[in-house]
Amino acid sequence: MISRVLSAELTEHAGQRVTIAGWVHRRRLLKSVSFLVIRDRAGLAQAVCHGGDLPGEESVVEVTGTVTANPRAPGGVELTGPELHVLSEPVEAPPFDLYRPVVPATLPTILDHAPVTLRHPALRAPLEISAASVAGFRAVLDRLGFTEVHTPKIVASATESGANVFGIDYFGRPAYLAQSPQFYKQAMVGVFERVYEVGPVFRAEPHDTVRHLAQYTSLDAELGFVRDHREVMAVLREAVAGMLESVRERAAAAVATLGLTLPEVPAEIPAVHFTEAQRMTGEDEPDLSPAQERWLSRWALTEHGSEFLFVTGYPMAKRPFYTHPDPARPGYSNGFDLLFRGLELVTGGQRLHRHRDYLRALAERGESAAPYEGYLQAFAYGMPPHGGFAIGLERWTARLTGAANIRQAAAFPRDLHRLSP
Amino acid sequence: MISRVLSAELTEHAGQRVTIAGWVHRRRLLKSVSFLVIRDRAGLAQAVCHGGDLPGEESVVEVTGTVTANPRAPGGVELTGPELHVLSEPVEAPPFDLYRPVVPATLPTILDHAPVTLRHPALRAPLEISAASVAGFRAVLDRLGFTEVHTPKIVASATESGANVFGIDYFGRPAYLAQSPQFYKQAMVGVFERVYEVGPVFRAEPHDTVRHLAQYTSLDAELGFVRDHREVMAVLREAVAGMLESVRERAAAAVATLGLTLPEVPAEIPAVHFTEAQRMTGEDEPDLSPAQERWLSRWALTEHGSEFLFVTGYPMAKRPFYTHPDPARPGYSNGFDLLFRGLELVTGGQRLHRHRDYLRALAERGESAAPYEGYLQAFAYGMPPHGGFAIGLERWTARLTGAANIRQAAAFPRDLHRLSP
Repeated sequence: MISRVLSAELTEHAGQRVTIAGWVHRRRLLKSVSFLVIRDRAGLAQAVCHGGDLPGEESVVEVTGTVTANPRAPGGVELTGPELHVLSEPVEAPPFDLYRPVVPATLPTILDHAPVTLRHPALRAPLEISAASVAGFRAVLDRLGFTEVHTPKIVASATESGANVFGIDYFGRPAYLAQSPQFYKQAMVGVFERVYEVGPVFRAEPHDTVRHLAQYTSLDAELGFVRDHREVMAVLREAVAGMLESVRERAAAAVATLGLTLPEVPAEIPAVHFTEAQRMTGEDEPDLSPAQERWLSRWALTEHGSEFLFVTGYPMAKRPFYTHPDPARPGYSNGFDLLFRGLELVTGGQRLHRHRDYLRALAERGESAAPYEGYLQAFAYGMPPHGGFAIGLERWTARLTGAANIRQAAAFPRDLHRLSP
Repeated sequence: MISRVLSAELTEHAGQRVTIAGWVHRRRLLKSVSFLVIRDRAGLAQAVCHGGDLPGEESVVEVTGTVTANPRAPGGVELTGPELHVLSEPVEAPPFDLYRPVVPATLPTILDHAPVTLRHPALRAPLEISAASVAGFRAVLDRLGFTEVHTPKIVASATESGANVFGIDYFGRPAYLAQSPQFYKQAMVGVFERVYEVGPVFRAEPHDTVRHLAQYTSLDAELGFVRDHREVMAVLREAVAGMLESVRERAAAAVATLGLTLPEVPAEIPAVHFTEAQRMTGEDEPDLSPAQERWLSRWALTEHGSEFLFVTGYPMAKRPFYTHPDPARPGYSNGFDLLFRGLELVTGGQRLHRHRDYLRALAERGESAAPYEGYLQAFAYGMPPHGGFAIGLERWTARLTGAANIRQAAAFPRDLHRLSP
C-alpha cells in the first residue's frame, strides 16, 4: 500500500512529515502563496505551496509535507514544505467545479457525468447513507436469526404482475427479469424460517416519475411462525431503527454534509387501519392517494410525534393474491404499508401459507395455477404462517436525504430514457 | 411472535413446560410409544407421544411439552406429555425422506424440488456456509474502509466480452445483462477509493458444465492508491481469511453436518509467476489448463502447506484490455488468479488508470473506443493506480463443501436448461 495517512488522521501527526494522497479538490493560486486542497475518502486536507507548476483540479497526487497547525485550515492543520508527486492527470474538466458547496448543475448533467460528479461531497453523501443503511438492515436481521439468501433474477414467468416486466432472451427461450424475490423468499422460509435478501429488482416502469426506477435495490425480509402481520411490523420497526442507528454511526460525515436531521423511530410505530385512514381523510377509494398519504403523515407527526406511520388492513382487492385476509374483517387484509414523511416506503404483510388457500385465491381472481407451479410447490410441502416486507433502498435514501428525485439516491440510475453511464 | 423456544435452547429449560415449533422431520410409530422429531431453524428436537393421530412428515406443528432428560435424544433432552397443534399440513410427499442422513436422490430431482429438498440439513448446509462467507467478506472490507455500492445490472453494450451475454428488451431498445460490475466498480474508486459489491452477474454460458452458472453471485472489490497488484492480493488474502473465520463462527453446525475440514489461510499466500508455473508443469500454452491448476495446487500444498496459491503475471494477451502490464516484463501483466484446491477461484489484478493507456490498449486490440465512452469517462477525470478482484460465491462454496457440481451451492441455479423453480 502507498504508505499514507488519511486527511482525517492528520491532526494525530502534528509536527511530523507525512504523505497524503488523493485528488486535487481545489487549486488556489495567490500572489505569494498557493493552496492545494486534497480530497481523499476521509475528507479534505490543505497543502501550502510556494511557486512551482501546481497540478489542476482532479489531478491525483501524493503530497509529502510537515503537519503544521493552522486554525483556518480544514481540521486545524495543513501540510507545509510539500513535495508533490502526480499519479495521474485529468484530460477533461468536470462539468462544474467540484469544490463549490452548492452543486451548480441540473440533474441530467449530474447523471450524464456520474463518474466525476459523484465525487462532489454532497452528491456522494446519499450513497454513503445508503451503504450505512444496508449495513444496519443486515445487522438487525442477523441478530434476529435471519439467514441471507441469493435468489434468481431471471424467471420463467411474469408472475408478480403481468405488466412492467422486462423480457429477456434466455438461450432462445423467453424469460423475464424478476420484479421481486417474493416467491423465492417465501419458499426459503420453509428452509431457514427467517431470510433476507439485498439485491436488484427490475420494473419496466413506462412512466417518467421522480419516484420510480427501472432497477432498484430491494431490502427484502420474510419470516415464519408469526401469529399475524403485527409481528412482521415489529421486525420492520427494528430494521428501520437499526438502519438509522447505522447511518448515525457510519455516515456521520455525510449526514453533516447534507445538514440532515434524522428521524426518531418510536418504540412502537403508530398504526391506523385503512378504514380509519379513509374516514379521517374523508375519501373512500379502494387505495390511498399520494395526497392522503401526505395528510396521514402530517397527522401522525402532530398526533403521535412520529415521522413513521403504519397503515394496516388494506382491502384485499388492492393487494396481491398471496396476501392473507384479516380473519376478523372479510374483504380487508393483513397487509400494511409504512409511510415515512408523506410517502409509502415499505409494503408488507402476512401471506397465505396453506396450499389450498393459494388455489382458492387464484381461482377467485380467475387466474390459472399453472404459471405458479414452481411457487406453489413450497406450500404443497407444509409452510408455517409467515409474512414479510420490502424496503426500496433508493426511495428510503431519497426520503431521508430530502432528495426531490429518486435518481439522486442511485449511483447510475436506470429509467425509461437512461441506460448509461 | 409465537412464544416458542428453539430446539437448540431446550437444554436450558430442563423440567419446564415449553412450546417448540417447526416441521415434523420424522414420525416414528412404534407399538407402545411414538416419536416426533421436530425440525426448526436451530436443529432437531424429539417429542415422545402416546397414541393419537400423529401428523405426518413436513407437517408444521407447535408442540408444548415438558423438557425431560434423555441421553439418547438429540441434545440430551426430549419433550414429554406433548400437546400438539398442527399449523399446516403438506398435500404432497417430498421426493425422498428428508430424515435420511444421506440424500437418496439425483441432482435433477433435488433441483426440481428445491423448495422442499433444501430443507434437508445436508442440502441446506452449503447455503448457510455461503451466507456466513458473504458476512465475513463484508466484515473484512468494512474494517478496511471500503464502501458498499450497488451498480446497474442492465447495461447499454456488451463490453466485458462480446459473447455470452443475455440480450434484453429495454423499452424497445436493445440492452444487456451485466457480466460483471467491473467498469462501475472502477468508476466508484474515483468516488470512494475502496468499494465492494455483492450482487448477481449474468453469463450466457452455452456449455453445460459442473462449474458454470448463467447467474451467480459475485463478490467484487476494487481499491485505489495501490503500488501494484500485490496490495490487491494482500486485501484478497484478508477477505478470504475473514470469510473462513465467519464460516467457523456462524456456520459451525453446517460445517459439522457436512463433516468439513476448513482450510487454513497462510499469513502470506504463496505466489508463483506464470512463467515459473509453466516451467514447473512443462507446458507453454498462453494459459493454464485445468490439469496444470490441479498440479500447481498439489505443489503448493506439498511445498508450502497451503491450499491456496497465487499465480501472477499472466500474459497480457490472455487478460482483458483494462489489465495493467508488468512494467518490468513486457507482455506479462499485473494480473493474478487465486487457486484453491485445484481450481481457479478468484481473478484479479491491477488495472490501467490513465486515460491515454486505455485508448492505446483498445487501439492495439483493434477495438473502437466508442462503446466504452461511459466507462472511459472515469479515467478522463483523474484516477489513482488501482486494482481489484472478484470471487464467485457459488464456486467458493462448492469448493469449500466438496460439492461435485456448482449447482449444489445455489438455492435455485440457472443454467442452459434450467429456468425454474
